[in-house]
Amino acid sequence: MKITLPSGKIITASAGLSILESLNQAEVYLTASCSGKGTCGKCRIIIKDGKTKSLSRMKLTQEEIEKGFALACRTFPEGDISIDIPKESALTVEGRIATGKSKDLQELLRSMNTEIEPITGRLYMKLPPPTLDDNISDLERLKRALSSEGLGCLRVPFRSLKNLADILRAKDWEITLCTIQSEGCEEVTNILSGDRTTPRYGVAIDIGTTTLVVYLIDLTNGSLIDIASTYNSQIKFGDDVITRIVYATEQNELAAMQNTVISDINMMISLITQKHKINMDTVDSIVIAGNPTMTHLFFGLNPAAIREEPYILTANSFPLSFAGELGINVRPDTPLYSLPSVASYVGGDIVSGVLASGLHKKEELSFFMDIGTNGEMVLGNSELLVTAACSAGPCFEGSGIRHGMRATEGAIEDVKINRSSLKPEIKVIGGVSPMGICGSGMIDAISEMFLAGILDSKGALRKEASDRVREGADGLEFLIHSEGGKEITLTTPDIENIIRAKAAIYAAFTTMIKEVGFTFDDISRVYIAGGFGQFLDIEKAVILGMIPDIPREKFIFLGNSSIKGAYLCTLSQKMRAEAEEIAKRMTYLELSVSRSFMDEFMSGLFIPHTEMNNFPSVKALMES
Amino acid sequence: MKITLPSGKIITASAGLSILESLNQAEVYLTASCSGKGTCGKCRIIIKDGKTKSLSRMKLTQEEIEKGFALACRTFPEGDISIDIPKESALTVEGRIATGKSKDLQELLRSMNTEIEPITGRLYMKLPPPTLDDNISDLERLKRALSSEGLGCLRVPFRSLKNLADILRAKDWEITLCTIQSEGCEEVTNILSGDRTTPRYGVAIDIGTTTLVVYLIDLTNGSLIDIASTYNSQIKFGDDVITRIVYATEQNELAAMQNTVISDINMMISLITQKHKINMDTVDSIVIAGNPTMTHLFFGLNPAAIREEPYILTANSFPLSFAGELGINVRPDTPLYSLPSVASYVGGDIVSGVLASGLHKKEELSFFMDIGTNGEMVLGNSELLVTAACSAGPCFEGSGIRHGMRATEGAIEDVKINRSSLKPEIKVIGGVSPMGICGSGMIDAISEMFLAGILDSKGALRKEASDRVREGADGLEFLIHSEGGKEITLTTPDIENIIRAKAAIYAAFTTMIKEVGFTFDDISRVYIAGGFGQFLDIEKAVILGMIPDIPREKFIFLGNSSIKGAYLCTLSQKMRAEAEEIAKRMTYLELSVSRSFMDEFMSGLFIPHTEMNNFPSVKALMES
Repeated sequence: MKITLPSGKIITASAGLSILESLNQAEVYLTASCSGKGTCGKCRIIIKDGKTKSLSRMKLTQEEIEKGFALACRTFPEGDISIDIPKESALTVEGRIATGKSKDLQELLRSMNTEIEPITGRLYMKLPPPTLDDNISDLERLKRALSSEGLGCLRVPFRSLKNLADILRAKDWEITLCTIQSEGCEEVTNILSGDRTTPRYGVAIDIGTTTLVVYLIDLTNGSLIDIASTYNSQIKFGDDVITRIVYATEQNELAAMQNTVISDINMMISLITQKHKINMDTVDSIVIAGNPTMTHLFFGLNPAAIREEPYILTANSFPLSFAGELGINVRPDTPLYSLPSVASYVGGDIVSGVLASGLHKKEELSFFMDIGTNGEMVLGNSELLVTAACSAGPCFEGSGIRHGMRATEGAIEDVKINRSSLKPEIKVIGGVSPMGICGSGMIDAISEMFLAGILDSKGALRKEASDRVREGADGLEFLIHSEGGKEITLTTPDIENIIRAKAAIYAAFTTMIKEVGFTFDDISRVYIAGGFGQFLDIEKAVILGMIPDIPREKFIFLGNSSIKGAYLCTLSQKMRAEAEEIAKRMTYLELSVSRSFMDEFMSGLFIPHTEMNNFPSVKALMES
Repeated sequence: MKITLPSGKIITASAGLSILESLNQAEVYLTASCSGKGTCGKCRIIIKDGKTKSLSRMKLTQEEIEKGFALACRTFPEGDISIDIPKESALTVEGRIATGKSKDLQELLRSMNTEIEPITGRLYMKLPPPTLDDNISDLERLKRALSSEGLGCLRVPFRSLKNLADILRAKDWEITLCTIQSEGCEEVTNILSGDRTTPRYGVAIDIGTTTLVVYLIDLTNGSLIDIASTYNSQIKFGDDVITRIVYATEQNELAAMQNTVISDINMMISLITQKHKINMDTVDSIVIAGNPTMTHLFFGLNPAAIREEPYILTANSFPLSFAGELGINVRPDTPLYSLPSVASYVGGDIVSGVLASGLHKKEELSFFMDIGTNGEMVLGNSELLVTAACSAGPCFEGSGIRHGMRATEGAIEDVKINRSSLKPEIKVIGGVSPMGICGSGMIDAISEMFLAGILDSKGALRKEASDRVREGADGLEFLIHSEGGKEITLTTPDIENIIRAKAAIYAAFTTMIKEVGFTFDDISRVYIAGGFGQFLDIEKAVILGMIPDIPREKFIFLGNSSIKGAYLCTLSQKMRAEAEEIAKRMTYLELSVSRSFMDEFMSGLFIPHTEMNNFPSVKALMES
């Protein structure tokens, strides 16, 4: 059997395989948050021609079914078919990510009061050639020279012996040693002929659940050469970390998942180095930052224990590893350093973010929040660091929301509701026709719907408020936009999802502050990190009751702070030591077993909150 | 084109390839000391049928040529042919080697005053399972337990993280750590589930130029489980270390040569472990001892600089390596320790031998000599260790001698010449018809020929002495044996070769003793090591002038002392430390540039010596 794709390309379909599985085999990937279980309703396709059998039409409206929509994971071809893949179902490779400016980054580095002193070094030496009177072996000659420079403890591992004889003699006993410091001991990672102290580069990688970002950095001056980014292709195994853990464990696909992310990273490194004509031999170091699950999958470590009580990681601080051990296509002996994790859901990305924010060195009390696929928070200053994670829910990334999508082209990112006509005005990323709604659009929409009286404080749609509130497949729903037969709605389950997510974030915030004996007034700064954060409208988020009603000037947007911290660690041993220190200092609050968190969460299931007095500006707005 | 072998097997021959090359391609190997250059005359075959073209018939007599003999390396088939391979040309896989007896070895170990404390350890631990209140990561939990046992500095490398989560949970948090001490730092090499402290085994390997010997050792009690041995298949690349270095360098065959020896070792380890139903998982450590060239080829290190002035090794002491890095088929993380080398031609085998002799700890002055393919000597005691190497010449292994062969079945090992009939009486290894003459046979023959007046003191054959002295292709030759048309002779060039070799050994001996200001009388012990040594007739060797004329009770035969030292190091960290100490203490005397050695060598080109007074017992014998 054959499946004809929109492009005209024809792929083979096998009996017994769903259309989704056949597409995956042909390396055509659809969004499938639930990894093909038929529950997320994301892998919609349109059957243009041919006979199929559908096991389930869940999440599809009668109208959609009539138009030929089907869930690729639940639909099986019964002969040759031809399909269409709606834009919102296809996994594209272009993300909308925080781009780092070289100048800003170098400024950040300077603000940290640190020298450029990369974690990997290059050391040029000229050895005296052997004679009959000085005929010690090559290795002893090298070690003698190192000792005379006070580097006697520099370890030369077995793999560095390979070709040593030839390397020493190739450029008349001039060599360059590549070195790394690890666990208090310096080690040679490679030996090159001649003076090769420049050029040399470092690669910093942010391994997000959804997006991967690579920085190529000049290690001699700290300048950012270029950025590459792509979706994490692991998305085909599920949208959020829990689904990925389940997939790795129950489907026994750990190795495949590791290969997937390594292959994404290789693709980006190769692209970016080729573009700048940079020899792979000059890539001296790799630094990664990711949440614990992403880090485990990257290293090929079984993540099963992360999601089972008592929620245990294989490691917080990872021993030094090498590109060759992981399949990364630079020099096999290029060392890889991973920012340390703190607990099951607080990883190197958060440690990296705190490092970049500098809050851990300041006297003032700060709050750091990174709302990505998950929500992680840190409360602290130079004396105290408390961290917690909550299932902010992947809903802000589009998962579990009927028309939800990530903040890419075609996503509604801004919603205003005309107070008299109650008609929403929308802004779409890329200025195209809307295909769905992203996190910031959801927050806008819900807070506007609340202010306009379409939604009550319990989050229930008021049917009498507008004829845009109507009965849908899942109860009442609100029509945000309709264009050319394509409708974008927020359904009652969507709204419940969003309110649960915002309640969790606010509850984490308040629980942490109470736990250490402070109030909101004690907070001097709120750092908002993450791809979602930077498009957030603070006013709307306060109205929704997602973040506390405190002076707006206290909020600072950091953008992708995870990659920024990784950048700092690539360039500075001091920064790496600080990152390790941050991870060690952090106290983890397990919210899932906290009674106080559950109480706060229940109180937060209102707009903005049960306790209106906590939100004076919203109260004033309501009264005006 | 096809070549039919004696067995009836038919192999393919290609135009442009010599018969030797075609045989090698089909993995049929002949002795070829010169690695196929047409100079050693060893790769004789008989063309039974078919047309061939011979580029050279050097080293073949007219009679042999008439019988169809040809040099396989210089002869090319011109159509289908059928050949015979004389026994003496074929490389066989059975050697005649020193076999270690378990009881003797354990006695040796006890005599060293050392405990059984292998260089690799196994450590059983039971960790407390994690709880919500004690939810540190697996690695931190392991490190905490190690710290509480005072093992906080034990390094856990990245590769040990793989599967750590599963291993800890598989047997209810009971684990066994495999560890190794290296450069002052202890490191985990593997982590196993449950209590796996026994059984565990070690493998000691003597990598000889000609023969490989493997000991399988029970690490819990030091008993020798079994021995395997085989010829070093690198022989197909040349008989002696120089030819092998040339082959590795000029033919760019280093990788092939490394594979060859590793494959021999794998074959033996596999054979011996299967025989005793020993699981590869229980092989915890590998210790090797070999001369510098063999060690370099084993590690895949370019040996070119060893044979070029100023004669430099890549390393004396080799950093820790692992089976997986070398392709040895035990656990990839099984550590491999190499006995250290001293100088270009004094290697781990000699350090190992000195260790096993114990001479380095005794007050009495001893002399240690290992006459294998090369000749290495050590003079010393607890205060002094001087070492030197001389090209004793591979002639005692059969190379460069027309009918020379190794001490295997068919070799004449003992020659007596009837003083009246002047007819030699021979003893052949295995009691079969003789195929050639081995080292001890040569020494016997020459000293007997001298005593019988067939040879003068300058090493010239006396034609008038016997009708067994006759004109041959290379001048005068002596017929030792004739049987069924097969003749075994010693030619004038053969005799010159042997005399040069014995002169070199004696000159090394005397030069070393003079260099440190001693005389022969100061020597309390002479240790004779090596496969050749154990069949040596001391009396005859003294008559030949190869070894000094000192009281016979001072001579001690050690057998294969190289494997014995490796055995000791496998079982004892203290022995390994002593071996490193021995290598560091040794002063290397470069004889090739010593004026004194050259003078001694010239004086030694007589039987027994220019200075007859140095050989009172021979003088007495001559006079009687």
